[in-house]
Amino acid sequence: MTAALNAVAAALFEQHRDLLARATRACATREYFSPFPETPDRYPDSAAALARGHATFQALLGKPFELDQPGEAGRLGDEVSPYTAAPLGINYPRSDVDTLFRAAHAALPAWAEAGPDARVGVCLEIVQALYAELPVLLHAVMHTAGQSYAMSYAGSGTNALDRGIEAIVYAHQAMSAVAPSALWERRFGSATIRLQKNYRLVPRGVAVCFTCATFPTWNAYPAMLASLATGNAVIVKPHPTGILPMALSVRAARRVLADAGFDPNLVTLAVDSASEPLGKRLVNHPQTAIVDFTGSARFGAWVEQNAYPALCYTETSGVNTVILESVRELEPVARSLATTMHLFSAQMCTSPQNIYIPRGGIDVDGRRASVDEVCEALAAAYRGVTADPKRAASILAAIQSPSTLELVGSMREAGARLGSIVVDSAPYAHPDYPSARTASSVLLRVKPDARELYCEERFGPIGFVIETDDADAALAAATSDVRAAGGITAFAYSTRERFLAAAESAYAVAGAQLTCNLTGAMPLNFAASYSDYHVTGLNPAGNATLTDASFVAARFRIAQSRRPVA
Amino acid sequence: MTAALNAVAAALFEQHRDLLARATRACATREYFSPFPETPDRYPDSAAALARGHATFQALLGKPFELDQPGEAGRLGDEVSPYTAAPLGINYPRSDVDTLFRAAHAALPAWAEAGPDARVGVCLEIVQALYAELPVLLHAVMHTAGQSYAMSYAGSGTNALDRGIEAIVYAHQAMSAVAPSALWERRFGSATIRLQKNYRLVPRGVAVCFTCATFPTWNAYPAMLASLATGNAVIVKPHPTGILPMALSVRAARRVLADAGFDPNLVTLAVDSASEPLGKRLVNHPQTAIVDFTGSARFGAWVEQNAYPALCYTETSGVNTVILESVRELEPVARSLATTMHLFSAQMCTSPQNIYIPRGGIDVDGRRASVDEVCEALAAAYRGVTADPKRAASILAAIQSPSTLELVGSMREAGARLGSIVVDSAPYAHPDYPSARTASSVLLRVKPDARELYCEERFGPIGFVIETDDADAALAAATSDVRAAGGITAFAYSTRERFLAAAESAYAVAGAQLTCNLTGAMPLNFAASYSDYHVTGLNPAGNATLTDASFVAARFRIAQSRRPVA
Repeated sequence: MTAALNAVAAALFEQHRDLLARATRACATREYFSPFPETPDRYPDSAAALARGHATFQALLGKPFELDQPGEAGRLGDEVSPYTAAPLGINYPRSDVDTLFRAAHAALPAWAEAGPDARVGVCLEIVQALYAELPVLLHAVMHTAGQSYAMSYAGSGTNALDRGIEAIVYAHQAMSAVAPSALWERRFGSATIRLQKNYRLVPRGVAVCFTCATFPTWNAYPAMLASLATGNAVIVKPHPTGILPMALSVRAARRVLADAGFDPNLVTLAVDSASEPLGKRLVNHPQTAIVDFTGSARFGAWVEQNAYPALCYTETSGVNTVILESVRELEPVARSLATTMHLFSAQMCTSPQNIYIPRGGIDVDGRRASVDEVCEALAAAYRGVTADPKRAASILAAIQSPSTLELVGSMREAGARLGSIVVDSAPYAHPDYPSARTASSVLLRVKPDARELYCEERFGPIGFVIETDDADAALAAATSDVRAAGGITAFAYSTRERFLAAAESAYAVAGAQLTCNLTGAMPLNFAASYSDYHVTGLNPAGNATLTDASFVAARFRIAQSRRPVA
Repeated sequence: MTAALNAVAAALFEQHRDLLARATRACATREYFSPFPETPDRYPDSAAALARGHATFQALLGKPFELDQPGEAGRLGDEVSPYTAAPLGINYPRSDVDTLFRAAHAALPAWAEAGPDARVGVCLEIVQALYAELPVLLHAVMHTAGQSYAMSYAGSGTNALDRGIEAIVYAHQAMSAVAPSALWERRFGSATIRLQKNYRLVPRGVAVCFTCATFPTWNAYPAMLASLATGNAVIVKPHPTGILPMALSVRAARRVLADAGFDPNLVTLAVDSASEPLGKRLVNHPQTAIVDFTGSARFGAWVEQNAYPALCYTETSGVNTVILESVRELEPVARSLATTMHLFSAQMCTSPQNIYIPRGGIDVDGRRASVDEVCEALAAAYRGVTADPKRAASILAAIQSPSTLELVGSMREAGARLGSIVVDSAPYAHPDYPSARTASSVLLRVKPDARELYCEERFGPIGFVIETDDADAALAAATSDVRAAGGITAFAYSTRERFLAAAESAYAVAGAQLTCNLTGAMPLNFAASYSDYHVTGLNPAGNATLTDASFVAARFRIAQSRRPVA
């Protein structure tokens, strides 16, 4: 590394030192933190920036996306907006995979040599660059994933960047824990041996980061930044229906790297299409050292089984469970559940899906509410969410994939056959986008033996009420389903401390993160960076946690050299 | 956990708090540390303790080994002493594997519930109990592995316990980094949400720990203690020719656990025989959550490929390389190499095997020494090591397996055919054990194209001198062989700083830990706990490092629960 390069990287580290310290403190205390305001109106020079962002997005449509990376061998891209039903008309360079790996490898030595602080400084600068890109990026997320404007801004913007910073914090801590050198001295018989020992951090090599269609950045940023900070290069493989958010992100990262004097090929984009998928080839590539995967449980399981000898970090999906045992008031619970089960049309890996209710009903402040009554309360709350199209638009947003509508259709048929439909699904009229692909959530009521329906993630606006023998059976069934089918979040409502304690223990072993008795303004499934651990790795919903030490500690290795000194 | 149990475990943690603090400091500074004197004469009440230990060992011979663990379904054991050639005559309970898993699972909840400090206290007490067992254990290692008395005491005793403490330190740090709870507060719109969040550490489950024939405890103690400290149970699967050291260790650990009020079935022994191996069944057992493996590269590769969904930590083997470029004096280098290549008859995963020398010879303080001259110096040094049987016994010790002698035979034949024999192998007469299986090291001189011979670990007293075009070619060939066949240690001799810097960079990428220009009293391959990282995970010699954060961080997971507070 040249002295000049040293100076640039060192300056970036100094520039972001205070942010790093505050984020590090937040990861330790798990208290609330974010350097970024969560609403667009508080973005710097908000009105102008947001207008410019929208104009920039519009200018991208229908054109080749400029991404000056090596190995271009044609172009592709057939994204369609879930809001307008129109193709975005953007095409991206389809780069030869071997060329991308070669370019990444060529970029590695100087990046490794730069050392932890320099890389952390550059990574935090990438976060800033992505924040600067957010006014454009939010439209890219809206028109590929189908998220609402607000969620695109916060969930795929500021919250995702927070998860990225969090990953950088953990990477920085893990690297800082390794002493760079030591003087070691010991007697061997009558002789004293003194050795100067030097320890260097060695990156694994090239990481491949798969991003998903509905939430492209939230898992991608922490994965990319964890790999980069620890000295690796990253090839980003976006879902073919949601390339633009990652194309913008990759381009921003490349610019920061180049500006800091590093080879931009530390971050590249590998696009593919549904008809010619690249995924397996990338996982099995002999130069793939790390795989980060977010996506379907089926391909995720294949990745986990086939990534060796690459390291593999996955977040797939599962059945997120709710247990209703007793409540003080039914209506706020029903409203929170209805809202969360509609949020982004339940196209989130944290969306609740299965509500387990004792068949004898639940205690509501001393009186018994039957399952019928609970279902009625839920149905009323469901209707409340979708009554006003403007409010529906802000909550439900759009359906990313046509196949989700098909699944809703087949599930409501099967649900009607094996049980009953509590609330049916229907499109709602989006006030701004008349062609938007929309669907309200269907809620199906089934018996426990309909496991073929509910004991599997049904991705999209599909929920189940499952009647169990009693509350203990509800907890047993829910946690057993989580162990079998995976589960990231879980929700329990009970006024009995003993039941909540049992739920805490059972869900801890099953490995779903539990939220108890929550109602009100916060979406039930909101996962806060720096505070909420996302995915335990204890069930089939994924093996990696955002963010714990194990998410970063193996992404680099330690090589040492020792020699005698006088 | 009962209050009484709490008190016992808390007292153990307090008792060992100072040791933990000192060991933690050593891991951070990488300076010399050990709580244990390294020579038997400094063992507490040495003479009496060692005599008692020997008598206890003698009393074990020819008898059933008492290990009160569940599921006994017969007994087995056919260990033979490499020193006496006589069977030890000890048999061990062959426990039904499913019973061991069930018993381990039954023991887990209370162990998980006890919490990090309590477990760390108990684990450090296990270290003390193993130290108390050392006067017996050293004979068990001698008469199964074939190590010398001194190595059995230090290498398999105090050094192994240090590696165990080191693993406990890292486990303690990783667990302590997770806040047990937090109060989190944030605004959502006009509402303020306050959540009490609790985080609990959840163990993976049951770990299986494979131990190897020649160095049973050195890798096993850190693996066992890392798993235990993080809340898991451990089933130890010793090599069938070296059960006794681990049977004693398991029994000692079980006693400590029981005395501290925990279920001793947190640590059990699963013995097998060469004719009815258990290894694959244990790796593939649906309840196996973690596999630690030390042993052959071949089975190690199978374990790495098949352990999923269990976590897998391996240390197998490789070719450890030496590069001679230039030296100030030849004789001390030859002596250090000869001694180290004879140490425990090179039955160590860190023993050097391949010496790469430029065919034009090397610079010795300004004059050129030909390859012939270097080989003669090595041959003289080899003879020096074995000239005195008493000294030979202390260095070479005994050959663990008859197959090693066969390998020496086939290698010297092949070496003579494809090159020449620099020094031949021969048995030496052990002064105390006339029946000891012994062999001095064979040194073969070959051309680079004899890769079929040297580019593979040849486990035992077998070394190669490989003539390369020049010094750069030596470095290129050696590091390329390490990348292909694995390598844990590496050694370079050069008086040119630029060459050493190139070697440091090349070996860092190849992933072998480099020692430069070392001569004198310390065995070249000595790896110091708290200071030397053992195995990088960057080449096929294993994927786990003793000890870095990644060795412990994934052995537990984090589950959380959150609920609103006023």
